[in-house]
Amino acid sequence: MNHYFNPVKICQGKGCLAKLPDLLQSLVADKGSDVLLIVWSECVLEHEIIKDLLNKQDGYKVHPVVFTASNPSVQDLYGVYDHTRKLNLGAVVGIGGGSVLDVAKSLCCLHDLDISNIDELRTAIIDKRFTENKMPWIGIPTTAGTGSEVTCWATIWDPEIEVKRSVESKENYAYAALIDPDLSSTLPLALAVSSALDAVAHAVESYWAKASNCVSKALALSAIREIMLHIDGLFSEDFAAHDAMSKGSMLAGLAFSNTKTTACHSISYPLTMHYHIPHGVAVSMLLAPVFTLNLPQIEDPKSLLAALGVKDADEFKARINGLLTRASIKSTLSQWGADKSDIEALVPLCITKGRADNNPVLLTNENIASILESIY
Amino acid sequence: MNHYFNPVKICQGKGCLAKLPDLLQSLVADKGSDVLLIVWSECVLEHEIIKDLLNKQDGYKVHPVVFTASNPSVQDLYGVYDHTRKLNLGAVVGIGGGSVLDVAKSLCCLHDLDISNIDELRTAIIDKRFTENKMPWIGIPTTAGTGSEVTCWATIWDPEIEVKRSVESKENYAYAALIDPDLSSTLPLALAVSSALDAVAHAVESYWAKASNCVSKALALSAIREIMLHIDGLFSEDFAAHDAMSKGSMLAGLAFSNTKTTACHSISYPLTMHYHIPHGVAVSMLLAPVFTLNLPQIEDPKSLLAALGVKDADEFKARINGLLTRASIKSTLSQWGADKSDIEALVPLCITKGRADNNPVLLTNENIASILESIY
Repeated sequence: MNHYFNPVKICQGKGCLAKLPDLLQSLVADKGSDVLLIVWSECVLEHEIIKDLLNKQDGYKVHPVVFTASNPSVQDLYGVYDHTRKLNLGAVVGIGGGSVLDVAKSLCCLHDLDISNIDELRTAIIDKRFTENKMPWIGIPTTAGTGSEVTCWATIWDPEIEVKRSVESKENYAYAALIDPDLSSTLPLALAVSSALDAVAHAVESYWAKASNCVSKALALSAIREIMLHIDGLFSEDFAAHDAMSKGSMLAGLAFSNTKTTACHSISYPLTMHYHIPHGVAVSMLLAPVFTLNLPQIEDPKSLLAALGVKDADEFKARINGLLTRASIKSTLSQWGADKSDIEALVPLCITKGRADNNPVLLTNENIASILESIY
Repeated sequence: MNHYFNPVKICQGKGCLAKLPDLLQSLVADKGSDVLLIVWSECVLEHEIIKDLLNKQDGYKVHPVVFTASNPSVQDLYGVYDHTRKLNLGAVVGIGGGSVLDVAKSLCCLHDLDISNIDELRTAIIDKRFTENKMPWIGIPTTAGTGSEVTCWATIWDPEIEVKRSVESKENYAYAALIDPDLSSTLPLALAVSSALDAVAHAVESYWAKASNCVSKALALSAIREIMLHIDGLFSEDFAAHDAMSKGSMLAGLAFSNTKTTACHSISYPLTMHYHIPHGVAVSMLLAPVFTLNLPQIEDPKSLLAALGVKDADEFKARINGLLTRASIKSTLSQWGADKSDIEALVPLCITKGRADNNPVLLTNENIASILESIY
């Protein structure tokens, strides 16, 4: 059965941030409400369009919060929640990377609950006790990779007990996403490349996921083609490449918003946790070996390879490693400081619920070990 | 700028009609409201799932209406509106071809307006005086071609003054679409082929439309590939082909829901009106010549040709004509009874607002005449 649902109003293109004032006008103007604006850096508040929003005197009032943490924790989220709970919120806007968008969308699930401390917030998240009267949010990504602007889940970390929690509700898709490549075109090269490869992983894994469907597959192939055709342009600071990454990342987001990811993401988490391998790098290192594992179960692998622009798994591996190396990013576990003897202890940590079981081929201790050895 | 929005909850696959009771339960059960069920034929009411719905004793009550007219007129629409205005409607379900779905979605735009005659209804449609409190509708297509289950507009005819009116609102997308190939797999061959070719035209025209964008393009290419790869299976009554047509038609619907169509649709309307050429046949006859006209302005025509499975315009024309001929459908204007001397009078009628101006190449009297001659 093919199921698909994604109600986000999408606008992608150079300069589309300029649509924010009108969007907010249509959302909250009549209601005289407050708008919470969460940004990743003070510099966003200096942007002409945002300055005008902050200075406006009529209709709604915009309250800025600069949120700089990456991988937001329950404590971080409680901080923003507590700071803004007295506001008469009508909408939330997030301008930043995945972490800022995750905080923005989480707040929309919680805004009118009566939560007085971090423990209560943790319980609300665990019990999925989310508000029934969801608040609209607008996602404006400043990286091109997470696709968070078009997914309905957020990751909130519980660092004391080393657990990754999900704030997730199909009612919590963004009202709109403004995907403006002007905002992501100034990313440092290594971050631009690893973000783009994260998006490739979203699309490739969505394509072969058990939960894949005919709509998500169309979007996934198109995302892969868009990114792989233009990713080399990032090295020459070509704006067209940033524009393509911004399209590709959004298309990949639309695809995996309905399918989630698979083995690459499942196996990547302990690698990021233990060796601090950036997320996009960890998943991209795993793409080719997981492709080889999954190949017998991939429907129409030719279309996937054609979109990737490679002939087989070996070319796929060489292509990804070439991109990482050219961006001065280490591309093997040993380069990232792993010891071969770590692999045995890593293997059981590589089974992440909701990812591993969405892989078309069953993950076993043996095939995970062999994958880790192949990228050692 | 790439704009895309389509909030329909999509479910496609054999047997998905069985999801209707649960969907209605989640929509209207608490409200004790009535559900209006518009079907294209009495036979739908004999379907086990529908019989159960009609007989249920608790929660909501289902009121069936059999609507058999094709190309619904303002008068037809008023008939259903008037017949059902006393109901406490909570949802509308349409099970049928494009005409039934058009009536279902139009009613949702009008249900709580106070309209007492056909003239008032016509005025409401012309003035776009639609209800603010839109009612949810569920679209269940029984043909595979129109894509009406995922578009937000309906065509209502005003036959006295020979005008085609549009009931259109972005708020009026279906709550859900159940696209069950079991319902379309019994279509007569000629209707199955012409419906599928209508969907091909939706996707091809969406691909080259001025209003095209990166999301719609991905969906369009996938729709074309799905249909053209499997359409020959319709001739051997292969269920897999019907399933592919049902996917492809929905994907094409998702694509053109955000871009509308172009020259083929624009030029087709007078051909249908004067020679009664079925809609899908008329647009498909125009595909190859309009492809030739548009070629200089088509972005990445190679991908389009690859999806179509042809090398060039000549192969494209031969492929479409071959399909029409095998389905015993006439494929030239002369076969449909046109006289060569008609062309001059037809030309000015071929410019349809909203279609002609969405074509990437300007339509002129000269190029329209030359297109009509090429299919004469």
